[in-house]
Amino acid sequence: MTTESKTLQKYVIIVAGGSGTRMGNDIPKQFLLVAGKPVLMHTIECFYKYDNKINIVLVLPKSQQTYWSVLAKKYKFNINHTIVDGGNERFHSVLNGLGAIKTDNAVIGIHDGVRPLVSIETIARTYNTAIEAGSAIPVIDVTESIRVVEGNISKAVDRSKYKMVQTPQVFKSEILFAAYKQPYLAQFTDDAGVVERAGNSINLVEGNVENIKITRPMDLIIAQALLGK
Amino acid sequence: MTTESKTLQKYVIIVAGGSGTRMGNDIPKQFLLVAGKPVLMHTIECFYKYDNKINIVLVLPKSQQTYWSVLAKKYKFNINHTIVDGGNERFHSVLNGLGAIKTDNAVIGIHDGVRPLVSIETIARTYNTAIEAGSAIPVIDVTESIRVVEGNISKAVDRSKYKMVQTPQVFKSEILFAAYKQPYLAQFTDDAGVVERAGNSINLVEGNVENIKITRPMDLIIAQALLGK
Repeated sequence: MTTESKTLQKYVIIVAGGSGTRMGNDIPKQFLLVAGKPVLMHTIECFYKYDNKINIVLVLPKSQQTYWSVLAKKYKFNINHTIVDGGNERFHSVLNGLGAIKTDNAVIGIHDGVRPLVSIETIARTYNTAIEAGSAIPVIDVTESIRVVEGNISKAVDRSKYKMVQTPQVFKSEILFAAYKQPYLAQFTDDAGVVERAGNSINLVEGNVENIKITRPMDLIIAQALLGK
Repeated sequence: MTTESKTLQKYVIIVAGGSGTRMGNDIPKQFLLVAGKPVLMHTIECFYKYDNKINIVLVLPKSQQTYWSVLAKKYKFNINHTIVDGGNERFHSVLNGLGAIKTDNAVIGIHDGVRPLVSIETIARTYNTAIEAGSAIPVIDVTESIRVVEGNISKAVDRSKYKMVQTPQVFKSEILFAAYKQPYLAQFTDDAGVVERAGNSINLVEGNVENIKITRPMDLIIAQALLGK
């Protein structure tokens, strides 16, 4: 083994599986135009700006890959990335992404394709902490009152005990590969949940409030306002 | 008693106590300009559009009342409203607002002055449900994964069981007056918490996702984008 092969390599798996139905729009939300180009190009650029040597794996439904290559040509998008097929659930999409990573000495982030507003600082905090401590996910405070609902009853809870979870969720490769050997469970809403279920603790780092997930029509207006500045 | 005096009267107490420090700005956030006028004017207009007969009580720190009257003149703002002094905590501000309501046959909403994007539909839903059932608060789904933090440990929770709480929070006057006779507790982060603590159940109605609370610099950019459309 050479010294080079021992160096910890950085990866990001960008999961872009959205079909666009929630937006009331025929175009999948990752392809919607914001500040002059598709959302997904903004997202990929965030990671390239953080580290232009990072290995980028893009998980995209097979049916969208031709359209993506047309867009890449049209917008002269030339950041190098590997494309793999999306799966039925997010879990399976991530699993497909992991299949494209052949080294066992890596730190791997998983990021939503529709979060084009992640800051370089948030990316750096998550990767740095994961390199040191095995895992890191970005979180922000809950700014509204929240209530927990059980059947017909709801009650106020202490919001200072809660955090909203963002991406990238970053893990050392051995932790992530082991966790994704588990069978899929419907309760897996994010990667931290998968890794936690496998018996690992999750480290929280500060996210950035702008790092919204574009899912509703309003989010597109917000993204336009923030990216168009 | 005449028939007219028996008619249920509608009130809204608009609480505008912010000092602007969280915005990194010297101007209190309720006075910041969005889409051509101060945030607070947009907010008051929402209730006037819902019902131009609604009684509007504006709770404003004494130190800001002269500035407000200057702004009202400058922007030719002529929606009728009663001004009362703000208190130390939101609880005390609401208490002062209640002091300006002399009828015992009312339905009273309490709304954040810095929520200028509440929809007419959200206002109507909360007042209609409160008139029928005594209380109503608008809530929306949690769209991000959330975690509960206890000391150094955090764990994923089922976000489908949680709701984010907005305003207006609306109650029949007898319920609200009785609840606000309780001594102040630091855990009272909203009016539903006060009313619930007094032994009442809280009805949830659907809010609107645009109904954000302007607290961070990003929120002002969002409000500008949404109100400026």
